[in-house]
Amino acid sequence: MTCLVVGSIAIDTVETPFGRAEEALGGTAVYFSVAASLFTQVLLVGVVGDDFPAEGTAMLERRGVDMAGLQRRSGRTFRWSGEYDYDMNVAHTLDTQLNVFETFHPAIPDHYRDAEFVFLGNIDPALQLEVLEQVRQPRLTVLDTMNFWINGERDNLTRVIERVDAVLINEGEIRDYSGQYNVLVAAREIQKLGPRFVVVKRGEYGSILFVDDEVFLAPAYPTFEVRDTTGAGDSFAGGFVGYLDSRSSIELLDVRAAVVHGTVLASFTVEDFSVGGLLKATAETLEHRHRRLATMTHIESPLPLKDMHLVSEGV
Amino acid sequence: MTCLVVGSIAIDTVETPFGRAEEALGGTAVYFSVAASLFTQVLLVGVVGDDFPAEGTAMLERRGVDMAGLQRRSGRTFRWSGEYDYDMNVAHTLDTQLNVFETFHPAIPDHYRDAEFVFLGNIDPALQLEVLEQVRQPRLTVLDTMNFWINGERDNLTRVIERVDAVLINEGEIRDYSGQYNVLVAAREIQKLGPRFVVVKRGEYGSILFVDDEVFLAPAYPTFEVRDTTGAGDSFAGGFVGYLDSRSSIELLDVRAAVVHGTVLASFTVEDFSVGGLLKATAETLEHRHRRLATMTHIESPLPLKDMHLVSEGV
Repeated sequence: MTCLVVGSIAIDTVETPFGRAEEALGGTAVYFSVAASLFTQVLLVGVVGDDFPAEGTAMLERRGVDMAGLQRRSGRTFRWSGEYDYDMNVAHTLDTQLNVFETFHPAIPDHYRDAEFVFLGNIDPALQLEVLEQVRQPRLTVLDTMNFWINGERDNLTRVIERVDAVLINEGEIRDYSGQYNVLVAAREIQKLGPRFVVVKRGEYGSILFVDDEVFLAPAYPTFEVRDTTGAGDSFAGGFVGYLDSRSSIELLDVRAAVVHGTVLASFTVEDFSVGGLLKATAETLEHRHRRLATMTHIESPLPLKDMHLVSEGV
Repeated sequence: MTCLVVGSIAIDTVETPFGRAEEALGGTAVYFSVAASLFTQVLLVGVVGDDFPAEGTAMLERRGVDMAGLQRRSGRTFRWSGEYDYDMNVAHTLDTQLNVFETFHPAIPDHYRDAEFVFLGNIDPALQLEVLEQVRQPRLTVLDTMNFWINGERDNLTRVIERVDAVLINEGEIRDYSGQYNVLVAAREIQKLGPRFVVVKRGEYGSILFVDDEVFLAPAYPTFEVRDTTGAGDSFAGGFVGYLDSRSSIELLDVRAAVVHGTVLASFTVEDFSVGGLLKATAETLEHRHRRLATMTHIESPLPLKDMHLVSEGV
């Protein structure tokens, strides 16, 4: 049970209609690690500057995250600043400073190379390929990406897609990449390139999982408080990959349950700024929301047809 | 088992990326009646001009729809013309000609007044009130509405909401009406006005049902072919109300199943132009999609916690 993650480690400044977080802990690798460390040993690969707060690394270490792959460079940590309207499906970027992230190349410590699960956060596909070259025989490789690479590094991105087992991708992004509007059709296109699993993320509407010819529809877990959606997708990924890493098989039922765990973890993240919401996810609160979601989505089997007055005209 | 519907009867011209329908049968009362007549006896209230095609009324009559409340006026039938991009959640209206619909007042035939179910399509709230005045003791009254009335006839609309049992409303509309962005909060606001049931419709993402304090999440039924979404909401309403009318009780499980029937009927509608897709819904195809949807949304109960490696740090 080891899960390698490579991705951004950031200091975020975020404003939403519900408040503001200044210079707060963020980035794909951080949200992912907090979520996945509920289930498994996380092996983190990333870079920070010399301004990165000690509380950030201490929090991850307390969760058992292996920091051997964390590079510390002189200079400033990657910074992202953005704001959201009430519609928090869309972030409006105010400022991006790559800083030490600009020249980042993932170096995989030797004891990371046998990682059973590998999550490639949405960094340059060329760097994602570097990671795949350095790991030995993972049970599952999972890719996330974003529009920037779909438009600018499509060929390299396709090479990564061809080599991974699972793709997590936003609805708008899979449409861009595949040129198909219908997400069922778009997901089939990705599957044809190689990945057995595709998860289409739809923000507040949840996600759709494709496994071979099967479809699993997972609505988002509804919460009364949605304060900041930053990191929701990365928390989903951490729950998804981390949960699978804790299972002995990766079959349809496992992957469906992994989507549920990702869904529930994302629901914690959106309830507060930075990782404040996600840190409230524990064994107990996770199980509670899992049960609630099962209840809220349960569809009874159809009644016997003879009990209904049904006409068949017009066919 | 009788279900009164009042709403538009239209001749629609619609263009989407997948084709075009010229002067085709449309309107709330038509889609609703085709859907609801699978389950119950529909009592139709509406108006057409002298140009309304005989095949339209013949098709409804073959489905057992009572046409005693259909007014035939000299002049042209209500016409709507619109187009859709690939994102068929949003219709772009090109032309609206009210024609005989402009001076429409619902006159309820005497034998309609004992209708057990009443569906008020999204017409002027003043007319919706006229209908409520004319019916005796329905088991369930259901309201649909739209932005035009939310902005222009808010007080009258509120009067109708206060008197009905159920409200079907689009996500954007409930936000407009309530001033609340979070749909859970917005639905509670509507429930406080009186209705026990609120269904928030979210287009291709499905719907959320609120019954007392309970929430039911119903993703849309995914289809490979989405050619024209006109009438999807009205088909949903027809399935929802029609199914309930075929049940002896209106409790949580019944209403959840009603949402499923509405969801499935809407999925037939979007597969073709006008009522072409909806007419393919039969007892057998409906049951098939109901079972498929139950499978595609099923969430297993959580595993025992002891089987997982879970940390509880950070709470």
